[in-house]
Amino acid sequence: MTFEPARLPLMANVIRALSMDAVEAANSGHPGMPMGMADVATVLFTGHLKFDPKAPKWADRDRFVLSAGHGSMLIYSLLYLTGYAAPTIGDIRNFRQLTSPCAGHPENFLLEGVECTTGPLGQGIAMAVGMAMAERHLNAVFGDDLVDHRTWVIAGDGCLMEGINHEAIGLAGHLGLGRLNVLWDDNRITIDGATDLSTSEDIKARYEATGWHVTTCDGHDFADIERALEEAKADPRPSLVACRTLIGKGAPNKQGTSATHGSPLGAAEVAAARKELGWEAEPFVIPSDILADWHRAGEPGRAAHGAWAGRLEASPHKDEFRRRMAGDLPEGFSLASHIAGLIGAPQKIATRKASEIALAAINPALPETIGGSADLTGSNNTLAGGIGTFSNENYAGRYVYYGIREFGMAAAMNGMALHGGVIPYGGTFLVFTDYARGAIRLSALQRTRVIYVMTHDSIGLGEDGPTHQPIEHLASLRAMPNLLVMRPADAVETAECWEIALNQKERPSVLALTRQNLPQLRLKAGENHSAKGGYRLKAAQAPRKVVILATGSEVALAADCAAALEEQGVGADVVSMVCSELFDEQPEAYRADILPADALIVSIEAASTFGWQRYTGTGGLNIGLDRFGASAPASDLFARFGFTADSIVPQILNKLNA
Amino acid sequence: MTFEPARLPLMANVIRALSMDAVEAANSGHPGMPMGMADVATVLFTGHLKFDPKAPKWADRDRFVLSAGHGSMLIYSLLYLTGYAAPTIGDIRNFRQLTSPCAGHPENFLLEGVECTTGPLGQGIAMAVGMAMAERHLNAVFGDDLVDHRTWVIAGDGCLMEGINHEAIGLAGHLGLGRLNVLWDDNRITIDGATDLSTSEDIKARYEATGWHVTTCDGHDFADIERALEEAKADPRPSLVACRTLIGKGAPNKQGTSATHGSPLGAAEVAAARKELGWEAEPFVIPSDILADWHRAGEPGRAAHGAWAGRLEASPHKDEFRRRMAGDLPEGFSLASHIAGLIGAPQKIATRKASEIALAAINPALPETIGGSADLTGSNNTLAGGIGTFSNENYAGRYVYYGIREFGMAAAMNGMALHGGVIPYGGTFLVFTDYARGAIRLSALQRTRVIYVMTHDSIGLGEDGPTHQPIEHLASLRAMPNLLVMRPADAVETAECWEIALNQKERPSVLALTRQNLPQLRLKAGENHSAKGGYRLKAAQAPRKVVILATGSEVALAADCAAALEEQGVGADVVSMVCSELFDEQPEAYRADILPADALIVSIEAASTFGWQRYTGTGGLNIGLDRFGASAPASDLFARFGFTADSIVPQILNKLNA
Repeated sequence: MTFEPARLPLMANVIRALSMDAVEAANSGHPGMPMGMADVATVLFTGHLKFDPKAPKWADRDRFVLSAGHGSMLIYSLLYLTGYAAPTIGDIRNFRQLTSPCAGHPENFLLEGVECTTGPLGQGIAMAVGMAMAERHLNAVFGDDLVDHRTWVIAGDGCLMEGINHEAIGLAGHLGLGRLNVLWDDNRITIDGATDLSTSEDIKARYEATGWHVTTCDGHDFADIERALEEAKADPRPSLVACRTLIGKGAPNKQGTSATHGSPLGAAEVAAARKELGWEAEPFVIPSDILADWHRAGEPGRAAHGAWAGRLEASPHKDEFRRRMAGDLPEGFSLASHIAGLIGAPQKIATRKASEIALAAINPALPETIGGSADLTGSNNTLAGGIGTFSNENYAGRYVYYGIREFGMAAAMNGMALHGGVIPYGGTFLVFTDYARGAIRLSALQRTRVIYVMTHDSIGLGEDGPTHQPIEHLASLRAMPNLLVMRPADAVETAECWEIALNQKERPSVLALTRQNLPQLRLKAGENHSAKGGYRLKAAQAPRKVVILATGSEVALAADCAAALEEQGVGADVVSMVCSELFDEQPEAYRADILPADALIVSIEAASTFGWQRYTGTGGLNIGLDRFGASAPASDLFARFGFTADSIVPQILNKLNA
Repeated sequence: MTFEPARLPLMANVIRALSMDAVEAANSGHPGMPMGMADVATVLFTGHLKFDPKAPKWADRDRFVLSAGHGSMLIYSLLYLTGYAAPTIGDIRNFRQLTSPCAGHPENFLLEGVECTTGPLGQGIAMAVGMAMAERHLNAVFGDDLVDHRTWVIAGDGCLMEGINHEAIGLAGHLGLGRLNVLWDDNRITIDGATDLSTSEDIKARYEATGWHVTTCDGHDFADIERALEEAKADPRPSLVACRTLIGKGAPNKQGTSATHGSPLGAAEVAAARKELGWEAEPFVIPSDILADWHRAGEPGRAAHGAWAGRLEASPHKDEFRRRMAGDLPEGFSLASHIAGLIGAPQKIATRKASEIALAAINPALPETIGGSADLTGSNNTLAGGIGTFSNENYAGRYVYYGIREFGMAAAMNGMALHGGVIPYGGTFLVFTDYARGAIRLSALQRTRVIYVMTHDSIGLGEDGPTHQPIEHLASLRAMPNLLVMRPADAVETAECWEIALNQKERPSVLALTRQNLPQLRLKAGENHSAKGGYRLKAAQAPRKVVILATGSEVALAADCAAALEEQGVGADVVSMVCSELFDEQPEAYRADILPADALIVSIEAASTFGWQRYTGTGGLNIGLDRFGASAPASDLFARFGFTADSIVPQILNKLNA
């Protein structure tokens, strides 16, 4: 699409007007960024971004990520102006109010044109890396006819200063993701003041050192922006376009200062800006000729979409492509026969190994999985099923060597899941969910199907000691909304958990898996018991006095304790509480049956006891570890910290007799 | 100290022998790194590092940080060989066993020569940045006579690939920390294989772009190592020395491969290595002449220590310097008069503002505080008390503009606290504890007095929406061992919490503070009630049926609920549960008095309910928010999510009547 050069400044000024008016109405928000990047965004949306406002979810659209999510009025303006069904001008008038999809930061679950939730700085670019990976992978699988698009990012200084930036651009540079273009709002201002208050970095040199193409432009010179974007598209490497801008451009007394960053301009400055910009329309009113121009911006995308639809219709891959982009598993997919095999030949293996065996069944059956590990492939057991390496030379590969980049991996997985067409899983040690936690939270908030394969899930990892032994991690992840935390007790439960995780279209999962071997406890064929979250693995023989809840490696210990109690005539149920989030979703009658009011409820988990009282009550017994671990062989640690039947059974008996 | 060149290879080979033997005996560990870096470490410890094995805590020693903590046998070997009291050779024989201080990863609380706990990759360098900051600050305060030392780091590829590396080196480059020297074990191997599996970065160019001096050396050529270290010391910028090494050097069949990284070499390869190295001594036996050489390595340090002790004795700053390095607050330090002032003139202010007021009293009284914020100074209210900016031009300043580097800030604060002589505090939003969590955990594990000023602590922050609204964060931090999580309810409690945090010599604190204004609830003079963790703010008037526990902004709501209940003749206590960790440390009788068995216990907190059942039991009532928040003005959100007396009181009455 070509627009007369004279029209572009007017089109950009609409963004400025809407942004300052919306922030003013809300009396809260960030006008500086949308006003500063209005010109760059106008060039991007009128001449480069491939999108169809009438079909926001068109699979082959370019992805646009506003990594500097605080500048949310930029994307709301663009979506409204180009003719998306939402937001409406009424939504924009209600910016940052409870009833409006125009939230303080863009939320992927509120507006279709928002590809991902941004605001936590640095993660937008990192998710864009994942989107660009998914694009290249699906291109390799389905060809240029069906998949051939770019990922565009607008990022600020904060996105570049965060640690995750290093991980994300390192991955993108290494993988040669030339379809990724980052437009950096180089305004030299952060909240605290000028960037030179806290950084002296040569950002362009850093990106170049990381394998990126770098160019610069005057972010207020439309021709120069156009030149830079063309240059970025032409280069085979990922590109950083440093757009030199004036934050809050148009606000004559505040532009170029941190005063425009995170606060309304105030009525006087808004009036001055309107004068400066020659903007005479009332707040939230867009002159019809300018709106008409903006509506034309989506026309090339609509045409491209039409042509693409024809190609899809003619493609032999049509059904498979649609299935994958819809996120549906192949009809009839199940791990039932895999599980039947496990039950037929019980094994004593680590659940990380059981996960590998499950993946050997899953990966050939589900071509949409993309696995990986943050440099712990052999420890996380994430490589299975004959999937090749995903690399610059083989985007059809399905295994990613993420390097020592836990946060970057998790964010990239979010981006892949949001792109669609793939189901990402990736591994590290459970303790290092701390490093990736910001992205795990965005998995949960954005409702992405990302599967975290978190091995070495307790002091059972042994000698590596307290820095590597998770204590509080299970509790801290269980406290997070919309996340399944699963800790299977044996090979069968591990396969069940994989099946559950793969079927969560709108929820991420953490699989907490052992380093050490565990006996197989599930020996009979049947339904997926783990899907109930917690279930009775063994019913009391003697009259029931005790119910022991345990997870993962402690379920076998619970069974030992129960056996010892039964020997003394004390009936004890054993409940494997694989996933408390799923258990909490069961009907009350089911939960009451598992947690009867007339029994002593005991929890056993080699981790913080925090939270277990929701099942045991304050009158129950919580066996756990409310301190950091130590370095020693696992068996010594379990003994030292009291995870033995000899230590636990007397405590249960004492409690019963109290 | 000068050693004959011919002796150095022998001295280095002891490290190799000890490392492979200890890993072999433990049947677990990482021999590759100590064997690869033995030559570099030998040059460092025999000619550059300033240390006194007989006085490991000497204030003016150089700090040595083994950032690649998995190579722990390197530091254990060096400490033993140079004559530290611990570890003994017996400790090394028991590497990675329960009784040995030679843990899988080095732990600062197990060995005096270990400056910080490492293992979680990237954090060692980042803590070293904090140590170097503390050194320059104390140098500016106390002069060259008392403070004049370097910080040395050995780091691996993992430390450089992690995101935190970007934050740490950006800070160091900007602050011009020329006393910081990082020796990079450039072996081109990670656990998964060759580094080119996951990265294509020009690391040297990246460091140069960030304001560092960079040089390289052959890590197995003693003269070249010597040259590089001299060059690093001479340059006024922080230095990266790329030491080109062979991982596992000496193991003839495995060196240079990832097979040496994280597993024992095996008996056959150990035998081959002994042959290759010409090493004939039995395992764990050090030839006496080589041991004698190693013992000489500490002599220059001992002499320097002696001279320094004389200067200290003669210094007018002697007592103050000793006090600060001991971590003692000035005698009689108290916030009592500040609190008396608050009680005399009640105010309705945000607790973040109350924190600023407290800091205005604290900072002039405690010259050891070093404050800062990750680019949210005006929001975190962390700048108070007339402390100047810490910068390249003014290391005497006490306020750090950390930039948008939450993880780097937290790790730097750990390094400062470990260095000693300063008490660091730093701010960001509570939700971004996720970004810094890896370092918060190391604060807790290492027992450092770091104070996290975490504002915007609930949906009460309003319009910024769910990405910025903490939900699970209080619970997830409470689950962490050895961390105080404090959520004060008004200006008085905020001052009390500051007093508590400052007095924790071996424990970090998180202060969770509101964005929004809160009424002052504490109106009478008295002791520091918050120090009990939870206390009865208001006793029931009518016969007590209910106890309402609340924290922070919900305590006033709890008081409203209690008042409404009393109007209906239902007696209700209100308990401010400021810090549950401290409450749990109170005598049982105190806790039972606060949480009587015959009352309905209700918790109110605008956050996840996870964990509150430990006080309320399963029969109590938990008012909280077990979903993500939304973007709207705070008052709308509190109403929408049921945080009003109108919503809560009927739930309490229903429960009482059930």
